[in-house]
Amino acid sequence: MESIYELKALLEDPAIHNVLILPHNMPDGDTLGSCIGVYYMVKHFNKKGYIVLNDDIPSNLSFLFEEEVKCYQLSEIEDIHFELSIAVDAGETKLFEDRFEAFKASNKTVCIDHHKTNSMYAEINIVEVAASSTGEIVYQLMKNFECNINSIAGQGLYAAIVTDTGSFRYSNTRSETFVACSELIQTGFDFNRLNVEIFQNKSYEKVLLLNKVFDTLELYGNHKIAVVKLSEALIKSLNLSEYDTDGIVEFVRDIKGIEVVVFIRHLGGEAHKVSMRSKHNVDVSEVAMLFHGGGHTKAAGFKMDASIDSIEAKVVEALLKVI
Amino acid sequence: MESIYELKALLEDPAIHNVLILPHNMPDGDTLGSCIGVYYMVKHFNKKGYIVLNDDIPSNLSFLFEEEVKCYQLSEIEDIHFELSIAVDAGETKLFEDRFEAFKASNKTVCIDHHKTNSMYAEINIVEVAASSTGEIVYQLMKNFECNINSIAGQGLYAAIVTDTGSFRYSNTRSETFVACSELIQTGFDFNRLNVEIFQNKSYEKVLLLNKVFDTLELYGNHKIAVVKLSEALIKSLNLSEYDTDGIVEFVRDIKGIEVVVFIRHLGGEAHKVSMRSKHNVDVSEVAMLFHGGGHTKAAGFKMDASIDSIEAKVVEALLKVI
Repeated sequence: MESIYELKALLEDPAIHNVLILPHNMPDGDTLGSCIGVYYMVKHFNKKGYIVLNDDIPSNLSFLFEEEVKCYQLSEIEDIHFELSIAVDAGETKLFEDRFEAFKASNKTVCIDHHKTNSMYAEINIVEVAASSTGEIVYQLMKNFECNINSIAGQGLYAAIVTDTGSFRYSNTRSETFVACSELIQTGFDFNRLNVEIFQNKSYEKVLLLNKVFDTLELYGNHKIAVVKLSEALIKSLNLSEYDTDGIVEFVRDIKGIEVVVFIRHLGGEAHKVSMRSKHNVDVSEVAMLFHGGGHTKAAGFKMDASIDSIEAKVVEALLKVI
Repeated sequence: MESIYELKALLEDPAIHNVLILPHNMPDGDTLGSCIGVYYMVKHFNKKGYIVLNDDIPSNLSFLFEEEVKCYQLSEIEDIHFELSIAVDAGETKLFEDRFEAFKASNKTVCIDHHKTNSMYAEINIVEVAASSTGEIVYQLMKNFECNINSIAGQGLYAAIVTDTGSFRYSNTRSETFVACSELIQTGFDFNRLNVEIFQNKSYEKVLLLNKVFDTLELYGNHKIAVVKLSEALIKSLNLSEYDTDGIVEFVRDIKGIEVVVFIRHLGGEAHKVSMRSKHNVDVSEVAMLFHGGGHTKAAGFKMDASIDSIEAKVVEALLKVI
């Protein structure tokens, strides 16, 4: 709690005028939506917030920024002196290393985050591991500081929560998450539009990619292990230069009876990336460590230089021993 | 509100011992989960509830019934006299017409529902159209009657709400929905298990069917109209005797830029069923009416005896005029 009072003291400090607000690289709904909340939180204390970001905003989240709030490039804010920097949803500084000099240059630094691996790199660290999302923490800060939550902030914080909880399906969802949403939905944003923008906006190319990858599905171990592959040949046949494979492993994992999904995708030459997800009891991080990778119990991976078929054989052999 | 007091008076009536609880036919999460809540609500008043159903319970919802609560067939409760019947989530009596005689045979009849088309067929009708789900109404009744909500009832009511709101993505979600869930999640059921059972339990055959139907996708009207088809040939090649096509139109609708999805599936002979879904402004019920069908603005359909190709041509021609 002490760190919250320290943040409040900073927000009340008349010597602070400009606040640098930093989402993490490869921004997602939680970091971007939370930044919008932080923007209005500092505005409540008569500070000017600048959300600064080099990456592109994912197309299904760009609607969050249509109105008053905008994002700046680092080059656009070179002449501004920031008395305070706030990193949002970033567990370590390498997640915004392209903007770390600007972060450090402020008189005061703050981090608001919910990752248990947070390295406590700022002067004031507001890290609540039990929170579903950083959006949920920013909501609580705004309540604590008696900030009005307008419909733009409400939309941002709701988007943060709904994306980081996988529509309230992940175990990070808790009672407080629903309490926050019961208030956020009343701030008056267009709820139907938010859900269309975020969830009914898959690119055709991505769905086609999912479909073609699914065609490669092989089942092993009494149908408990599923392997899908994105080979060099498939990449060429679909004429993919860039591709977004988010969601493919989860799509396969959600099939009844499947306990572990392995997704092997070509990176270049003989290099392949292997991602694994488990549903119940298999610890895929232990299997990943056998191949010098790592991760979490239910989501882990590694890289390997070998043919896609030999990687498949090796991973399946290792998984059959633990399933 | 008056009907709630009338229900309370019945539940407090010592002359009432056995309560018939009826979900609707082709039961979904809302009707089944709500029945479990009603079971504990009547138990709180020392009545014995019997949930009676002829249909099979969908496999992804059977976990709701593992413990104390069970479902009965009509034949199993022939010798019991019911002083009270409660129909749950059924807007009209034809939704439980196989059990309507038993419903009517009770001294008193009650309906708890949230459908705006409810025909008010019971003596006491508790119909709250603004509620996301019948589960949300049962939660409010239990609060109102000061019933303890144990983990089995909490799981049932949460399942009712999460399925009828499409994981809180549909516009029927409101502030009160989240308030209910903030309490239900605290009743102590296994939240991760509920989400795995309901959402990570797609059958392999269904995913394969989705994948093969997606292969038939054709785009028209500047990629705003998508047509997918389940032909007789495809049914034979997949060796499908029974098939569940739920979710296929929604999967295609959620692609960016697509405004209307048409799904044409073979029924038998030349007979085909056409389902349409729209995302924003196109009223597909008007197009369905051109072909003697009907439905809602965003979800409508019709049946036609013709070849699949000629149906596709006719529907696309009609849609191009309104898109």
